Amino acid sequence: MRLTYYTDYSLRVLMYLAVLEEGQKSSIGDIARSYGISENHLIKVVHELGKLGLIATSRGRGGGIKLAVDPKSVRIGDIVRQTEKDFDLVECFDVLTNTCKLSSSCKLKHLLASALQVYLNKLNEYTLADIVEDPSTIQILLQE
Amino acid sequence: MRLTYYTDYSLRVLMYLAVLEEGQKSSIGDIARSYGISENHLIKVVHELGKLGLIATSRGRGGGIKLAVDPKSVRIGDIVRQTEKDFDLVECFDVLTNTCKLSSSCKLKHLLASALQVYLNKLNEYTLADIVEDPSTIQILLQE
Repeated sequence: MRLTYYTDYSLRVLMYLAVLEEGQKSSIGDIARSYGISENHLIKVVHELGKLGLIATSRGRGGGIKLAVDPKSVRIGDIVRQTEKDFDLVECFDVLTNTCKLSSSCKLKHLLASALQVYLNKLNEYTLADIVEDPSTIQILLQE
Repeated sequence: MRLTYYTDYSLRVLMYLAVLEEGQKSSIGDIARSYGISENHLIKVVHELGKLGLIATSRGRGGGIKLAVDPKSVRIGDIVRQTEKDFDLVECFDVLTNTCKLSSSCKLKHLLASALQVYLNKLNEYTLADIVEDPSTIQILLQE
């Protein structure tokens, strides 16, 4: 059971932007270099986070990327729900491709769905601000 | 976020065996045909479930596969924990391959680990007997 790299990178971009100083902006290049990951991977991530209204991008001199929301208002479960496209824990979650004959009366499916809900609810107990509680340490680690 | 096919098939094999009549045995071929899945996929699944002590296999005339445990004593979270090999939700869960600089002071990692625990605890509220609560309906569906 893994989250996708897409979700992993989305969370990292948001954490990076959440510890910027007031008024500071960043760029895909800076974020990619700090984490040692490919810029190409981040282009789509940043684009999608923009479409979700979580980050804002401005062009030109003085432009860059910054958070578009208050980190205290963004809950982690909500981010994961939006970035993780596939929550089909087992085959029968997708009725179009399911072949399991038991799905009409299977209690396992409902149990897995309810455990997933519990998982996301737990993540929603924390906001983006909570997971970057110590911004100065995170800034130092990102510059190393 | 998906469970592996390996876990999915393990749960299906256990459900199949849990609804057999007292004293009845089955075979990989029967189970594969009932679910419309490949026998090859099930060979390893059945072998591993045997190693976990969940099913027993006997050879020869009258031989076959049956549950080796009382379905009321097997909790779903424990099965998933044993069959799902990879619970590395994000990169930093594996210290050997992690490249994220934040992992030493990242609260996200701990939050994801605790949400995973909550997920498995929820699954552990139910046993194999609970998810095949209506064995006769499941038997009918498997024969269709």
